[in-house]
Amino acid sequence: MDLVTFGEAMVRLTPPSSQRIEQARSFDAYVGGGELNVAVAAARLGVSSRWVSRLPENALGRMIANRAREQGVDVSVEWTTGDRAGVYYAELGAAPRASSVLYDRAASSISRIAPGTVDWASAFSGARWFHVSGITPALSASAAKVTAESLVAAKKAGLTVSYDLNYRSKLWSAKEARAIQEPLMQHVDVLITTEEDTRVVFGIAESKNAYEHLDAESYDEVARTLQKRFALQAVAVTLRENPLVLVNSWSAIVAAEGEIHRAPRYEVEVVDRIGAGDAFSGGLIVSRLENRGWHDTVRFATATSALKHSIPGDFCLVTRREVDQLLGGASLRVSR
Amino acid sequence: MDLVTFGEAMVRLTPPSSQRIEQARSFDAYVGGGELNVAVAAARLGVSSRWVSRLPENALGRMIANRAREQGVDVSVEWTTGDRAGVYYAELGAAPRASSVLYDRAASSISRIAPGTVDWASAFSGARWFHVSGITPALSASAAKVTAESLVAAKKAGLTVSYDLNYRSKLWSAKEARAIQEPLMQHVDVLITTEEDTRVVFGIAESKNAYEHLDAESYDEVARTLQKRFALQAVAVTLRENPLVLVNSWSAIVAAEGEIHRAPRYEVEVVDRIGAGDAFSGGLIVSRLENRGWHDTVRFATATSALKHSIPGDFCLVTRREVDQLLGGASLRVSR
Amino acid sequence: MDLVTFGEAMVRLTPPSSQRIEQARSFDAYVGGGELNVAVAAARLGVSSRWVSRLPENALGRMIANRAREQGVDVSVEWTTGDRAGVYYAELGAAPRASSVLYDRAASSISRIAPGTVDWASAFSGARWFHVSGITPALSASAAKVTAESLVAAKKAGLTVSYDLNYRSKLWSAKEARAIQEPLMQHVDVLITTEEDTRVVFGIAESKNAYEHLDAESYDEVARTLQKRFALQAVAVTLRENPLVLVNSWSAIVAAEGEIHRAPRYEVEVVDRIGAGDAFSGGLIVSRLENRGWHDTVRFATATSALKHSIPGDFCLVTRREVDQLLGGASLRVSR
Amino acid sequence: MDLVTFGEAMVRLTPPSSQRIEQARSFDAYVGGGELNVAVAAARLGVSSRWVSRLPENALGRMIANRAREQGVDVSVEWTTGDRAGVYYAELGAAPRASSVLYDRAASSISRIAPGTVDWASAFSGARWFHVSGITPALSASAAKVTAESLVAAKKAGLTVSYDLNYRSKLWSAKEARAIQEPLMQHVDVLITTEEDTRVVFGIAESKNAYEHLDAESYDEVARTLQKRFALQAVAVTLRENPLVLVNSWSAIVAAEGEIHRAPRYEVEVVDRIGAGDAFSGGLIVSRLENRGWHDTVRFATATSALKHSIPGDFCLVTRREVDQLLGGASLRVSR
Amino acid sequence: MDLVTFGEAMVRLTPPSSQRIEQARSFDAYVGGGELNVAVAAARLGVSSRWVSRLPENALGRMIANRAREQGVDVSVEWTTGDRAGVYYAELGAAPRASSVLYDRAASSISRIAPGTVDWASAFSGARWFHVSGITPALSASAAKVTAESLVAAKKAGLTVSYDLNYRSKLWSAKEARAIQEPLMQHVDVLITTEEDTRVVFGIAESKNAYEHLDAESYDEVARTLQKRFALQAVAVTLRENPLVLVNSWSAIVAAEGEIHRAPRYEVEVVDRIGAGDAFSGGLIVSRLENRGWHDTVRFATATSALKHSIPGDFCLVTRREVDQLLGGASLRVSR
Amino acid sequence: MDLVTFGEAMVRLTPPSSQRIEQARSFDAYVGGGELNVAVAAARLGVSSRWVSRLPENALGRMIANRAREQGVDVSVEWTTGDRAGVYYAELGAAPRASSVLYDRAASSISRIAPGTVDWASAFSGARWFHVSGITPALSASAAKVTAESLVAAKKAGLTVSYDLNYRSKLWSAKEARAIQEPLMQHVDVLITTEEDTRVVFGIAESKNAYEHLDAESYDEVARTLQKRFALQAVAVTLRENPLVLVNSWSAIVAAEGEIHRAPRYEVEVVDRIGAGDAFSGGLIVSRLENRGWHDTVRFATATSALKHSIPGDFCLVTRREVDQLLGGASLRVSR
Repeated sequence: MDLVTFGEAMVRLTPPSSQRIEQARSFDAYVGGGELNVAVAAARLGVSSRWVSRLPENALGRMIANRAREQGVDVSVEWTTGDRAGVYYAELGAAPRASSVLYDRAASSISRIAPGTVDWASAFSGARWFHVSGITPALSASAAKVTAESLVAAKKAGLTVSYDLNYRSKLWSAKEARAIQEPLMQHVDVLITTEEDTRVVFGIAESKNAYEHLDAESYDEVARTLQKRFALQAVAVTLRENPLVLVNSWSAIVAAEGEIHRAPRYEVEVVDRIGAGDAFSGGLIVSRLENRGWHDTVRFATATSALKHSIPGDFCLVTRREVDQLLGGASLRVSR
Repeated sequence: MDLVTFGEAMVRLTPPSSQRIEQARSFDAYVGGGELNVAVAAARLGVSSRWVSRLPENALGRMIANRAREQGVDVSVEWTTGDRAGVYYAELGAAPRASSVLYDRAASSISRIAPGTVDWASAFSGARWFHVSGITPALSASAAKVTAESLVAAKKAGLTVSYDLNYRSKLWSAKEARAIQEPLMQHVDVLITTEEDTRVVFGIAESKNAYEHLDAESYDEVARTLQKRFALQAVAVTLRENPLVLVNSWSAIVAAEGEIHRAPRYEVEVVDRIGAGDAFSGGLIVSRLENRGWHDTVRFATATSALKHSIPGDFCLVTRREVDQLLGGASLRVSR
Repeated sequence: MDLVTFGEAMVRLTPPSSQRIEQARSFDAYVGGGELNVAVAAARLGVSSRWVSRLPENALGRMIANRAREQGVDVSVEWTTGDRAGVYYAELGAAPRASSVLYDRAASSISRIAPGTVDWASAFSGARWFHVSGITPALSASAAKVTAESLVAAKKAGLTVSYDLNYRSKLWSAKEARAIQEPLMQHVDVLITTEEDTRVVFGIAESKNAYEHLDAESYDEVARTLQKRFALQAVAVTLRENPLVLVNSWSAIVAAEGEIHRAPRYEVEVVDRIGAGDAFSGGLIVSRLENRGWHDTVRFATATSALKHSIPGDFCLVTRREVDQLLGGASLRVSR
Repeated sequence: MDLVTFGEAMVRLTPPSSQRIEQARSFDAYVGGGELNVAVAAARLGVSSRWVSRLPENALGRMIANRAREQGVDVSVEWTTGDRAGVYYAELGAAPRASSVLYDRAASSISRIAPGTVDWASAFSGARWFHVSGITPALSASAAKVTAESLVAAKKAGLTVSYDLNYRSKLWSAKEARAIQEPLMQHVDVLITTEEDTRVVFGIAESKNAYEHLDAESYDEVARTLQKRFALQAVAVTLRENPLVLVNSWSAIVAAEGEIHRAPRYEVEVVDRIGAGDAFSGGLIVSRLENRGWHDTVRFATATSALKHSIPGDFCLVTRREVDQLLGGASLRVSR
Repeated sequence: MDLVTFGEAMVRLTPPSSQRIEQARSFDAYVGGGELNVAVAAARLGVSSRWVSRLPENALGRMIANRAREQGVDVSVEWTTGDRAGVYYAELGAAPRASSVLYDRAASSISRIAPGTVDWASAFSGARWFHVSGITPALSASAAKVTAESLVAAKKAGLTVSYDLNYRSKLWSAKEARAIQEPLMQHVDVLITTEEDTRVVFGIAESKNAYEHLDAESYDEVARTLQKRFALQAVAVTLRENPLVLVNSWSAIVAAEGEIHRAPRYEVEVVDRIGAGDAFSGGLIVSRLENRGWHDTVRFATATSALKHSIPGDFCLVTRREVDQLLGGASLRVSR
Repeated sequence: MDLVTFGEAMVRLTPPSSQRIEQARSFDAYVGGGELNVAVAAARLGVSSRWVSRLPENALGRMIANRAREQGVDVSVEWTTGDRAGVYYAELGAAPRASSVLYDRAASSISRIAPGTVDWASAFSGARWFHVSGITPALSASAAKVTAESLVAAKKAGLTVSYDLNYRSKLWSAKEARAIQEPLMQHVDVLITTEEDTRVVFGIAESKNAYEHLDAESYDEVARTLQKRFALQAVAVTLRENPLVLVNSWSAIVAAEGEIHRAPRYEVEVVDRIGAGDAFSGGLIVSRLENRGWHDTVRFATATSALKHSIPGDFCLVTRREVDQLLGGASLRVSR
């Protein structure tokens, strides 16, 4: 395994045809979760990946593990009895109604993980990169402890560590998020975040007010500040403009090696934007594991995640060839 | 009950996935009708509402009543035997094909309503507001008579009366619409309409030609002319620009108390625009029943109805909190 | 309100087309729960009913309340924040695989109900009958206490009390079920149960071994023993034979007034048997509230619940006329 | 064209997955109607057929005509404006709930057909057989007159005439059915009916009471009595036993040439029995037009219609080869 | 028959709801193929049309023929045994992912067509126009030979011949396409193409680089060059701008009679753009068969095909009235 | 890996809701194939399994591999370009219409496999059992050669070899099947078959005519004859009675060690019987790999495969616990 990720994956229930949860008479069932999504993106792009988690031994737990395996991810799960699987309901919006998520993940199997129960040495055996996001420590106090353990173990094992800030206001407050995560940053090599999460969690904001019309350059400062404060190898900031719900623009920058590396901006027609940030992380990791520089990496990760917006579900079900074609300037004509 | 409405509700059949009626192998089934839609919007926003109608005692009639109850509306229906339920087929378009409605409502139960059969005193007991639209008198000569009865009774009972002009060219001619409705205006306090319906039915148009690019100010004149001609307390005009079918802009003005009150303009991604006007009426009524001024009212009603465009079916399935958040400037990011 | 019931209702998710939960890519969404199902059956048959419960103020909580209202049930719910709605996954089987239920109802809103918080006097105002089942006390210790409260209050208010034993081995052990429920029996007038639940919970079994081919007469003894032990007005025992999953036979007996009253046996083609027992309770209550004797009552309740087997979802969506026609010997030809 | 039929076809709406109409959130859309079903069956089996009818020029009218053409039927339709298409809702049952039909066909286009408006000479040009059923005269007084016209014209043109009694209690009373149809019998060569319809409409019943367990022989008398009373070339009686809704047995007899010809009995698993009788008529007509005797004809028609029970929708979508294989004793193993 | 077309039609399988093929658990089934699509468009617009093809006698072959008949096309098919029906999987994209087609049409029935086996004299009997596209000769060497036969026969029979270049890179190389098709051009009266196909196949490109923002005038040169090189009566070039996948602009020009005739540009919201070019051809042919000039023809064909973009499936399921209304400047309001 | 299997897996397309292929407007997509089905059953029951095959590198090929991985099977596939994936259409019947399969698997990737291209030593590394069926050699001459290679290699590597006769009349004649397969039998340890396939392929039939009502004992002779003729360690014969399509009875015998071992007979309600034989093979292999005797093995394999009948798709999606519960006499009550 080149890549190891650690976190929760849930059954995701989404009403079909833009319906609201409340009116739904059926739900489409997907599986998703930040760190699993990253493992899936990496596996699809050709990097072997393992996902470490904890699931109940019931039909929903098996559904989650099976769909991870379906995409080629190595599933390293502690199976439990008496617990429940996390579930979330995702309602897709249309302007002026934003998409929204209703979490039903309290008391899920992974939230009850106990410190010292994961054999990290074994989980990391042969691996080169470890990825976790700010969702995992938000799940419970014990999950936060195990996250800290995992980061220490990863560094000890010589892995590169990436961390997606991924602030979830429905799981914890900004204050808690900061208190728990600032100490974790010392173990992190690459931080992936958005302008908004950085501002809310770490209180770092660009000096010019660039709200209405996103200007990539104004985020340089945010990225550089983060990089310095936490002595990070690199900081990636994804940039989204959403004047509408179903058409966004999407780009990213990386601050690394004293430079700002910029990706082009993509106009994306949004089928499902959940998981786009994770696809970005997956693309970034794959590119770095293939020894490409940050200029190419930010472009590769942005193209990968731009494609994700067109795919239903959390997973970035692309092929390597599709990403390469987009980078090469593919047209939007029907391919036939 | 604070609000009473009177009119037809139908089973609505819509082909899924933008299909045309002719090619459909299945239809999604909703329930809708102008005045029921208003009662639903009001109930969802916290105002108790009653819907007065007439339905056949069969599976379709029960479906209609049940879905009204589902949204918390008090159903005051005369159940009949031997009649049919109105049905309409709604085909959702995409530019350059407009959405279209095929009515199959002739000889429906409510079209056979007889003057003198509704106990309006009882229906209005405890109520403060009555709403009806121009669809009800268009259903049949007897329905037009009962509409007139209802307006007289409402004024007698001291209710505020709102009337949505709602011209339906598939039900009657503009000439008939004018002949029947002009005499009704004397009982109306608040008229809700569009520029187009006003022009077609009452022959009132703005003096400048503002067709191509809707200019809210140019409608001021229309609203003021109507207000004067029929000595109305207020006239609300909803404003829609539809250069495309699936993305519109939406706003409204109210002429009242010697002023024009304007709502902001919303870019709306159209999942289903049927019922947006009714959601506007519902929002307007709720706001007035809560004793807010016209400035706040036009903003509240417009925000409510802007949200409606994102919801499948005729009903405005929002929460009060969602309307308040939109008025407060909610972003289009995923809420999570 | 003639009838009041108290208990949990959940969102029910069922894979379509006989799929297994694990393989489902979509779930059909219903709402159900023993005591709500009883209230629905009664409302459909013409008896006004109220359902007392506790729900979270979110999209799932609203879905549950709305679907209860849809069927005409008066919803008396305490709305909470921070809780979750109970959910259950129901997988429909085919011989030799039984249908199965996966509960995800731990920590649901109603399980956290606190003794003393329901105003029973108000809930019972004007009512004549109270119904609860053995599921409610199984939800949590506090729910068990509130169940006891409710029974005391109901008797104090002069209501007839029915209790469906409804043993759920996935919620508690037989031993717990017995310890908690035996003291409750003193408040019960009519106990509704099955031979199996009686044996497991109260250790009462028929003396002859009638397992393989159900013989209604052999259950007389069970019913009479229960009636005597708990000094009940009546004991109803539903009788099911299921040599297959999709075709069962269904009947019932009532021991009351010194006699055994028997219903005919129906061959039922099982579309969805969940809720059949509740439909039986609903039919029984309606019949008694209409002052019919036990002979007619067991026949009416059995016919109602036989029809339930043909209807998807927990609710018994029949009309009074359909039950009467079945009692009158309706044929199985297409009605046209 | 070898065969001409005359009658109404409707859009048929059926809730999926055994749902009840009242609870449906979608309907599957089929097209069907007795005489069109017969034309379809004949066309599928290799006999050219034409269907004469009247339809509104709208999306539903076109849907009906298109689906007839899809099966190879020549559509000879008078297109009208301002009328509606007939619709019916078919709810599929499961024991003890019978399937049921809710007609919404009043005032349909064909019910307004005027005597003298069909050019029967042209419609029958080159044809050898004419078929109509007792549904057409039940639609309206004018439809009854045109039915009479059609029969006279058919005999004049030298066609063999078959008539399916097809009594529909939701369209007219038995008394009306008899009064209108007895005079039509003089033009009929082959009458197709069931024991029940014969008894209800013509008051002819078997002398022994063979209700509970259908005994084909007991229907001989019914068939013979009919044959004599109306001087018919042949009388076909289809025989159905339905102890359950989803498993029936199905057979038929023909009284002709002084003999009773019997088909074998088929156990049928009922996917959709609507249209089975029409498939029988289609098979009978095809067999006779191919000059086979009544012994072979009753077997061919019964096999064709036994297969129909397994096919969703009104149409008998079989191939000639499948009917021949069933007659030849095909097994129920998977064909692979 | 006024129009005859010749080519393959396939079963088309498309994942619902913008899913990718790889993740689909169901496929929507349509029927389509360039030349059949043209015949369907013509039939819908009122011109009688016949489609000549070759299909296997199995369920898929029948599905294809039936859906052609459904739209009123006369089906002149050689039925074969032992062959397969062509199938294609169409995946609908969203920016930046283009829609894509996976062909599974190798060794289909029509690809095995033998020269000399079609009775063209009979196929063309009474016809006035023949249409074929560059897909047919791309299917196989023998299909290319039969295409050449058909063109010779059509000219001999005095038909006007139209040819849609329709280059498919997944079927053959540009070099092969040119070698096979250049000799065919001598039989062609009207060539229909795009700028891109012309450039790729015939090496003819506009001199100014008009890529980014399509400028209709820059294509004049392409059209004129083609017209001269192959001595064509007319050359039609369809013009598409696709900055996004789901919103395009669409127009066309025709070079004929020494002039360039231009259609207006339509903003189209893309439900399904497959078949738009075929709808253009169908509209063009209908307009010419109705003896209208090229100015009107390019407008009619463009309006027809603009509407096609809003309709799921390959077929242009419009009515004549809808095309006329669009040409007349129909609004995008809901028609009701 | 304990188990290795070798063969084709296909995309399977099945019309929903008992529709016929010809009428379907959508297809449910599954993946299946005899040998993959066996690997899936084994993996589900706890035995590690590998599937050796050949697939095209396109969306359908990936779908097939992914769904194998989803169930935990190790996928050892040669990816090819320019080939197609096999597809089959499965139409589910109802009496008197049998289910039927339309293969579209000619020229599939695996049919073009070349002798010498599979590294069997590596594929079998660490394995204990090899399974293949009579479908693989039926695919093509080269596939037959590779099948022979695989059997030789398996025996050389010391694996136990099982072979399912699985005769497919749509792929080859009985004569061909015999000629190719008789020589293969020398490498086989355990032959799995049905009475019908044995009779058709090897001309071995029971002496008494036991057709109508299957009598397990009468198959003893068939099994013993096979065992002797080919010197097999064991012969398993599955026994199916299908008086109807949707309710069958299912059992099996094994002749081994001089005895006949019999399983009980299960009444099975058939949701999907395709793959039941493969589930039997999977159960048999698992039981033997766990060192159980033939008495237990035939019971375990029969229970596993009885459950398969209740599960949509080819795969036997059971858990070990469910099989054990059925063997332990689980009831058909709802588990809750």
